[in-house]
Amino acid sequence: MHVHHDQLEVRSHGKGLYEITDNVQSKIDKSGVRNGTVTVFVQHTSCSIVIMENADPTARHDLEQFFDRLVPENADYFTHDVEGGDDMPSHIRMVLTRTSETVPIMDGKMQLGTWQGIFLFEHRGVPNRRKFLVTIMGE
Amino acid sequence: MHVHHDQLEVRSHGKGLYEITDNVQSKIDKSGVRNGTVTVFVQHTSCSIVIMENADPTARHDLEQFFDRLVPENADYFTHDVEGGDDMPSHIRMVLTRTSETVPIMDGKMQLGTWQGIFLFEHRGVPNRRKFLVTIMGE
Amino acid sequence: MHVHHDQLEVRSHGKGLYEITDNVQSKIDKSGVRNGTVTVFVQHTSCSIVIMENADPTARHDLEQFFDRLVPENADYFTHDVEGGDDMPSHIRMVLTRTSETVPIMDGKMQLGTWQGIFLFEHRGVPNRRKFLVTIMGE
Repeated sequence: MHVHHDQLEVRSHGKGLYEITDNVQSKIDKSGVRNGTVTVFVQHTSCSIVIMENADPTARHDLEQFFDRLVPENADYFTHDVEGGDDMPSHIRMVLTRTSETVPIMDGKMQLGTWQGIFLFEHRGVPNRRKFLVTIMGE
Repeated sequence: MHVHHDQLEVRSHGKGLYEITDNVQSKIDKSGVRNGTVTVFVQHTSCSIVIMENADPTARHDLEQFFDRLVPENADYFTHDVEGGDDMPSHIRMVLTRTSETVPIMDGKMQLGTWQGIFLFEHRGVPNRRKFLVTIMGE
Repeated sequence: MHVHHDQLEVRSHGKGLYEITDNVQSKIDKSGVRNGTVTVFVQHTSCSIVIMENADPTARHDLEQFFDRLVPENADYFTHDVEGGDDMPSHIRMVLTRTSETVPIMDGKMQLGTWQGIFLFEHRGVPNRRKFLVTIMGE
């Protein structure tokens, strides 16, 4: 049993969900691991990683609308706004979601359910290059 | 050190919390692993897995009430409602909670705190068969 | 590849974020693992572990304010209040955040991003001793 680390960089252009399922599977293919787990870890505090419904774009649209209402920009009690109105909401949305996801690997493939995809959930309005570490443990 | 995968299926009959702690411990017993971790991964996007207070049913009741208020059915901005009013809220509740939990194993037992239990958090009203993968890594 | 478990106890004195990044790194140093993952698991249902912005205290202040508004004490529908007004909100805040975090280790160091820190997120008002298990897997 061994551990393999790899880096993944994803460009975002505004708030929303960006699917990275195929990027993660490619790292597993490259590692040669057939049986184990993959942990995808995002090295930022203003975006998240989530597993979400990947078939219907309207589900992603509604999710984004929900978060815009749940964590509004420019709440009157916010004091942390150095980088603009989406600065503090981005940290709160990250804490409400996830910094890493772990998925089982069998026969060399992630064992996602039929409708599950892995997504970068970008919380900032400006374009970004987001860095992930993909850690594959197994044999 | 080795990896063991096992499947777990749980029937739900409406929204709410269903404890699966004993089901997960049984899989560990079967694997023979004494020292390591277990990752429980749910292969759906309309239910979650959470670790929650397992002693007092009123705590689970209040949690369900909170989520019914936080993510109401039939919000006027929802566009994804193919499967009914609980369709979109189920995806949002999943993103706000978790798709997997990882728990340490020592001496063959999950090291949960005194009041911690592992639960399927069902977000759909109709009965379901929910599939989990239980991945045990250790020696 | 091996697994190392260690215990960590952190004292809290009221609601808020308490950084434990250095405590976790010390456990990794002690284990001698250079390459793998660390999983930090909190053995309670009334506090959380989160990865959060660690540079600016105002970001943590605003996060705490947000959660005080999102999950208010003494909601009229709460029935679980044996231990006071912050009892039920503490369980809900835990479900909305996380019970464990997993971070990659390379060259003996956690691969956190520039602004990422690991925090105990205490949801109770009274002083507490909080127990964590730190599980290091690797070689």
